[in-house]
Amino acid sequence: MQSPPRGRRLDAVTGPFTPRTPRVVAARRLHRRRDRDATGRFLAEGPQAVREALDRTGTVVELFGTPAALDRYADLAAGAARADLPVSEVTDEALAALTETVTPQGVVAVCRHLDVPLDAALARGPRLVAVLAGIRDPGNAGTVLRTADAAGAGAVVFAGDTVDPYNGKCVRASAGSLFHVDVVRAADPQAVVDALRAAGLTVLATTGYGDSDLDDLADRGRLAAPTGWLFGAEAHGLPGELTAAADARVRVPLHGRAESLNLAAAAAVCLYASARALRRPRSGAHPAGEPVT
Amino acid sequence: MQSPPRGRRLDAVTGPFTPRTPRVVAARRLHRRRDRDATGRFLAEGPQAVREALDRTGTVVELFGTPAALDRYADLAAGAARADLPVSEVTDEALAALTETVTPQGVVAVCRHLDVPLDAALARGPRLVAVLAGIRDPGNAGTVLRTADAAGAGAVVFAGDTVDPYNGKCVRASAGSLFHVDVVRAADPQAVVDALRAAGLTVLATTGYGDSDLDDLADRGRLAAPTGWLFGAEAHGLPGELTAAADARVRVPLHGRAESLNLAAAAAVCLYASARALRRPRSGAHPAGEPVT
Repeated sequence: MQSPPRGRRLDAVTGPFTPRTPRVVAARRLHRRRDRDATGRFLAEGPQAVREALDRTGTVVELFGTPAALDRYADLAAGAARADLPVSEVTDEALAALTETVTPQGVVAVCRHLDVPLDAALARGPRLVAVLAGIRDPGNAGTVLRTADAAGAGAVVFAGDTVDPYNGKCVRASAGSLFHVDVVRAADPQAVVDALRAAGLTVLATTGYGDSDLDDLADRGRLAAPTGWLFGAEAHGLPGELTAAADARVRVPLHGRAESLNLAAAAAVCLYASARALRRPRSGAHPAGEPVT
Repeated sequence: MQSPPRGRRLDAVTGPFTPRTPRVVAARRLHRRRDRDATGRFLAEGPQAVREALDRTGTVVELFGTPAALDRYADLAAGAARADLPVSEVTDEALAALTETVTPQGVVAVCRHLDVPLDAALARGPRLVAVLAGIRDPGNAGTVLRTADAAGAGAVVFAGDTVDPYNGKCVRASAGSLFHVDVVRAADPQAVVDALRAAGLTVLATTGYGDSDLDDLADRGRLAAPTGWLFGAEAHGLPGELTAAADARVRVPLHGRAESLNLAAAAAVCLYASARALRRPRSGAHPAGEPVT
């Protein structure tokens, strides 16, 4: 049997934290972007997210859990204690105040922001980068982050007025990928395009009105070079000046009668087309790395 | 100026319908599956869905709208009137009762179910079919329906305990595709697999534990034959017996550290891999149509 992690006994003297305990009150404020921005902290709820956060050294600040959940996920409490982090029992009511899901899984970690500057991410030489330019729906943003991770992207840039990557719904939709890839926040999408190109990446803008067909690009070997993909807002797409700044404007082919794909589906198709091309350049196609025009 | 469509003047005598008007009361019951199943009807809200429904002759039963929306979308009211369908003005409160979105767009149509038997759909020789086997989230189901339409699928099968295709959230997520492709409801997913195979389609099951890599299948020309894709539940995937019944068990490659893709993203990648292979069989690969093993 594992001995109870450090910190739990101490709290047990006065009982689990309630929604009115000052540390719970402070943590629950992190549901608001203003408080996340001010403190540089955010919440990650559920055992999967907490585990991924703990795996990334220096990310977790403290861990809250119901007594039942801290027993059930003893590895998390032990991991936090090993890292010398406070682990605190909370009541069910306090947990509900700290979480946003209907059926919270009993644990929530206060984490430090982990985004890196764009230059730092590009210095690591990613061959695939996703840029979210104006995506407002946190579930969509988190899903694209997860898909980009799965497709092997090294960095995901939250640019312009894209949703906060630390929004709870985005964190949950990312299913841990927030902790895997280099997440970048950048105020100016145009500067991101310039930086990607300066780093040697081809910049492709997805738009339903693109003059380049995704399959054509793949067939011609044009996806085999390091690529940064720009994904725009659900309703209105990318702003025109950003589309114009890209090396090519790419449409996902629509074979049936659907007028468009939803954002996450379009991003999945584009990112996986790149993933495949980067690993298996087409035989007989143009040499990899030829500029897209 | 277009004259007001038939029916609106009549209703105007007593004013717009309220939430207590019997026809509104009857229509709003269609939010419940029980009542949809009993009546064979469902609701399609918003101008896009109503337009697509009207384009499919015999689908719309009646149209409700606020006076402002019926003026704004005069083509819809006129189209319904031309088809000899009742068009009724409703109050904002009645519209809110008939719709499920936070910002409804003023029009909602009562529609007849439009699913077709599996045999009828297969008789039309679709080269790409998506089978939803146990998908419970209506937003996911509708998104996969939309993506399948975009990828050129001829039929989408809602099998087993998959969500009702006429669930309002599914209808909205399909973005009109419910009205484009042959939608099939089938109680027994195993019988669907048998019927697909009897119709000459290769049956591929998506699973994170598949022994066939999607890119490998594509490289070997194995996606160039008519294909039925099986997509399982978000959390638990396909049931084992269904996975076993398929011709191959296919995994989408995970290049990064994500443990999985979400359902809609995985379906998009698979369906578009098929769409591409069906249109552009790989040169130098195995001949199209070779069975997948």
